[in-house]
Amino acid sequence: MAEPKENVLMEKIVSLCKRRGFIFQSSEIYGGINGFWDYGPLGAELKRNVKELWWNTMTRQRDDVAGLEATIIMHPKIWEASGHVSTFADPMSTCRQCKKLVRADQIWEMLPENAWAQAIAELCPGGLVEGGKLLAWAKSKGQRIAPNLALVRNPEVTLSFLAERIQNNPTPLSTTELYQFLATEQFKTTGLMNPCPHCGGELTPARPFNLMFKTHYGPVESDENICYLRPETAQAIFAQFKNVLETSRQKVPFGIAQVGKAFRNEVTPRNFTFRSREFEQMELEFFIKPDEVVEAICGGVAKASDVNPQSAIRNPQSNWGWEAWHQYWVEERVRFYEGIGLDRSTLGFHRQTAEELAHYARACTDILFKFPFSKKDENGNVTGDELEGIAARSDFDLSQHARFSGKPMGVFDEELRAAWGKLPKEKSDELWRRYYENRKKYLVKMGVAAEQAARDATNDANGLAKGQYIPHVIEPSAGVDRLILALITNAYSEVTKTDDKGKSETTVVMKFHPRVAPIKVGVLPLLKNKPELVKKAQEVRDRLRPWMNVFYDDGGSIGRRYARQDEAGTPFCVTIDFDTLGEKPELLNTVTIRHRDDSKQERIAISELLNWLLPKVR
Amino acid sequence: MAEPKENVLMEKIVSLCKRRGFIFQSSEIYGGINGFWDYGPLGAELKRNVKELWWNTMTRQRDDVAGLEATIIMHPKIWEASGHVSTFADPMSTCRQCKKLVRADQIWEMLPENAWAQAIAELCPGGLVEGGKLLAWAKSKGQRIAPNLALVRNPEVTLSFLAERIQNNPTPLSTTELYQFLATEQFKTTGLMNPCPHCGGELTPARPFNLMFKTHYGPVESDENICYLRPETAQAIFAQFKNVLETSRQKVPFGIAQVGKAFRNEVTPRNFTFRSREFEQMELEFFIKPDEVVEAICGGVAKASDVNPQSAIRNPQSNWGWEAWHQYWVEERVRFYEGIGLDRSTLGFHRQTAEELAHYARACTDILFKFPFSKKDENGNVTGDELEGIAARSDFDLSQHARFSGKPMGVFDEELRAAWGKLPKEKSDELWRRYYENRKKYLVKMGVAAEQAARDATNDANGLAKGQYIPHVIEPSAGVDRLILALITNAYSEVTKTDDKGKSETTVVMKFHPRVAPIKVGVLPLLKNKPELVKKAQEVRDRLRPWMNVFYDDGGSIGRRYARQDEAGTPFCVTIDFDTLGEKPELLNTVTIRHRDDSKQERIAISELLNWLLPKVR
Repeated sequence: MAEPKENVLMEKIVSLCKRRGFIFQSSEIYGGINGFWDYGPLGAELKRNVKELWWNTMTRQRDDVAGLEATIIMHPKIWEASGHVSTFADPMSTCRQCKKLVRADQIWEMLPENAWAQAIAELCPGGLVEGGKLLAWAKSKGQRIAPNLALVRNPEVTLSFLAERIQNNPTPLSTTELYQFLATEQFKTTGLMNPCPHCGGELTPARPFNLMFKTHYGPVESDENICYLRPETAQAIFAQFKNVLETSRQKVPFGIAQVGKAFRNEVTPRNFTFRSREFEQMELEFFIKPDEVVEAICGGVAKASDVNPQSAIRNPQSNWGWEAWHQYWVEERVRFYEGIGLDRSTLGFHRQTAEELAHYARACTDILFKFPFSKKDENGNVTGDELEGIAARSDFDLSQHARFSGKPMGVFDEELRAAWGKLPKEKSDELWRRYYENRKKYLVKMGVAAEQAARDATNDANGLAKGQYIPHVIEPSAGVDRLILALITNAYSEVTKTDDKGKSETTVVMKFHPRVAPIKVGVLPLLKNKPELVKKAQEVRDRLRPWMNVFYDDGGSIGRRYARQDEAGTPFCVTIDFDTLGEKPELLNTVTIRHRDDSKQERIAISELLNWLLPKVR
Repeated sequence: MAEPKENVLMEKIVSLCKRRGFIFQSSEIYGGINGFWDYGPLGAELKRNVKELWWNTMTRQRDDVAGLEATIIMHPKIWEASGHVSTFADPMSTCRQCKKLVRADQIWEMLPENAWAQAIAELCPGGLVEGGKLLAWAKSKGQRIAPNLALVRNPEVTLSFLAERIQNNPTPLSTTELYQFLATEQFKTTGLMNPCPHCGGELTPARPFNLMFKTHYGPVESDENICYLRPETAQAIFAQFKNVLETSRQKVPFGIAQVGKAFRNEVTPRNFTFRSREFEQMELEFFIKPDEVVEAICGGVAKASDVNPQSAIRNPQSNWGWEAWHQYWVEERVRFYEGIGLDRSTLGFHRQTAEELAHYARACTDILFKFPFSKKDENGNVTGDELEGIAARSDFDLSQHARFSGKPMGVFDEELRAAWGKLPKEKSDELWRRYYENRKKYLVKMGVAAEQAARDATNDANGLAKGQYIPHVIEPSAGVDRLILALITNAYSEVTKTDDKGKSETTVVMKFHPRVAPIKVGVLPLLKNKPELVKKAQEVRDRLRPWMNVFYDDGGSIGRRYARQDEAGTPFCVTIDFDTLGEKPELLNTVTIRHRDDSKQERIAISELLNWLLPKVR
């Protein structure tokens, strides 16, 4: 549970978002629709700026990344190949008494805190941590699993069941499997179930509920034309890999970038826009040579520890394998966040453990932001919630699409072909063997029969001598809406001023980095009813407007107008006063620039204004 | 049917789009999915540029428009209020013989041309135009209806049926009604139906098929949580009208702009990306005062004919009513198209006739582009297909959402309140009456009982004296994908060169306006293997890159590299040669700029390059 103080901050943020037009509830006049949020005028600008900066940084500023904009609805086979049709699911139970649906792995979060404490005391007198090795293992699978174990009415039975299951089959259980196991096996033997968090009634066994929104294309609603709203943008990149490769004059290593909407039918959307059902992603798939190929060409592979992130950061080297590239992208992404105002101290990092990783992934580093709703770890530190994951996904995705589509996904690399011919046999045999083993392991894992897998892996490894291989991929995958919420949280600050009469007023100042700020500059004539001031102010506005988002405001006192821009997060205000018109001749055609963060003011010539502002807001 | 020559052009365009990475078939490796298209690296840039220019022009460059970014999935009641649930449908028949589905109003287009000619000759010996008044009326309802009338096996029967129907009920039939009528009434009496265009078999009566993609939110698939992918972005703007009004410091007249995806489950997607199932819209809802309010405040209402578009274009006047605003937005939008390279001569205009207009609309002007697949009118002129519609939609949308949500959608206008009090009674009575009549007409049309409608309209009209009214709206609604296709078509040109040996080669030059061109400048070192040239070229690239999309290319002969940039539509290429390095000392640090459209070259100092390019590409 978040602490009350943190909830208060979230409430203030949600309220500000609505009051100032950053974020509204979708369809609010119809009572809203759970898990959907609209961006108002300020939010839309903030979001555009963030997406534009990401696109610029990731594609336009680089030679080695090409862009893509694919459809949300794609051929359904894409989601079979990616695994989403079979495994992208949450465990769901229904209460036999109140008929409510419950997400089985979140039951403990839905129980009132004292009920939860009571349940622990009652059911597991030694305390959860005493549950032994098994509980520690469950915990390493993700915090949310552990507490739920205690909620079954007879933890001893559960623990012995699980011990047996693990002994018979050492593969770690997926969350879904775990809950199916708990809900069905235990129920069969003991008749005991988790209680319903709403009424305490009996729950049905948990069933997997697929998170993809399903619809139909074409005029007939049949199983043959089911399609899905994409749950991630990444798969389109893999599906179009060959088309992009062939049309963009790129060679591995290179990346394909995409920004776009994705949809997940979350059972319990929550934490404002953090976990919503419709959201936007910014994903890069950066294709690299497999380590065996790097080694064949360069004679060796740089390890991540060989890469000095400070010096090498802009200079990828040809001997980088996946570890170095993975570290490079983590650093690049952190630099991006720093560049838009998220100081490294506001971020957290989580390197997924072997148990957390998807079976095909070699590493995944999550970049976290410390949200007001973020939970504390055992040591009482806020670790944060995920903004972005940077995963080393091996050649899994391209291999899957190659198998499901029957279209080759490999590349030809003349450098590899030439290098391979010059390798000592011992070396080429060793590289062949490693590549072969990796391919075979993948194929067997995906259910290909052992003999067939060996034949296919042999073919794949034989390709190396001809310069052929399937690229591996590093995937920096960021959520736009989460980042927007992080930027809003990070920008939020309150200033309390006390006037002469001792009356104090608290106002909100949104300290956005000027690069992301929705409005870059407010242009304010001192008085509304002086045509000369208004005319001059409009000249200033029109001079700046082609280059940045300008807000012209002539309503109310200058102090109130500053306060409004502070709340909108506008970093600079320009005031046109009588000195601008030459009341003090030496100040003719100068304006006051007022800084949002410290309220300081300075005087600058109108002719220099654009050049003063541009480098700050770009 | 398009002429062969035009089909050849379309084929060339589709082929270029794939070859150069403008547009790919979605999910191509899985055989594609009908009606869905992906944008490759060049296409994604082109599309981003167009959307960014629209957003800039429509919101950032104006004081009177605010932006919005709403969700694709909204509360389903929104589509009840908008009328999409009940009427957004195409008429569909199934063939009893071959079981294929047929869109009833497109049967004539699906028949081979000679079969069509034969059918006319056989069934309607006098020719279609001889069909008399009735056919002319049907034609005025939209071209696609007319030819189909001839396809029924007994046109005389059809015509007399329709004559009777119209006599009994003078309300024009909707397309769906017409087809239901044809398919059911005629069938009942005569047993005659349209033939199946695939096998000639008998078709079932046409039924309306809703074009909205349907899905479910939340974990249960029940009727209670059906939702739709938005078929247009406009409705979100109406639903959030009050939130935006209250947070953006705008007053009527003002607009709300949105860019985003929309989905229509077209029965027969066609003409490449022109009619697809997933597409993107750029829509502005510009809210204005009702004419009665303008008249109360200003004493009169400017007619469209009073507005001189050339002089007044940037200066909307307070006495503008809907006609003037409508004309203003048509002109603004044409200027936009001209500004990105679509000359007025490439466009067409269609002002919808009274019969074509939706019942609530007062006017709609379509801006057309002459596509290679556009059909010819009776006089043999290509009129074009719709890029954008600019509709005067009255207060229909806000009124509907007010009724369906129970939330007031009116605004308060102090100027109106003050002016109303000063009106002579005769005048205020007249304005009251006109406003009342309009409101009552709307309410009755929507099925509100006469007495209730009179009461509600009285309340609405009484609001005027208190400064209250429901704004009217002008809606410029543009399709992004159609515009991209228009820009590609418009840019496409072929250049044939014959060399000394008489061998001629034809290459493609994509003459995009520099503002929309995916790549603004190609930077080319003369030779790849001279480190000094490469280093200098990379310096030039890095100098320009923060400001525009640059493509660095060092592969192949300079002629081939120019040709590649011509195909990509890059307006300028910068070549770094030995003179740049000072071989001719007076040319030190100068480069060659080569113009795409005429291949002319000029020499310019590197230090002046950015300032030379910037105004051309922005």
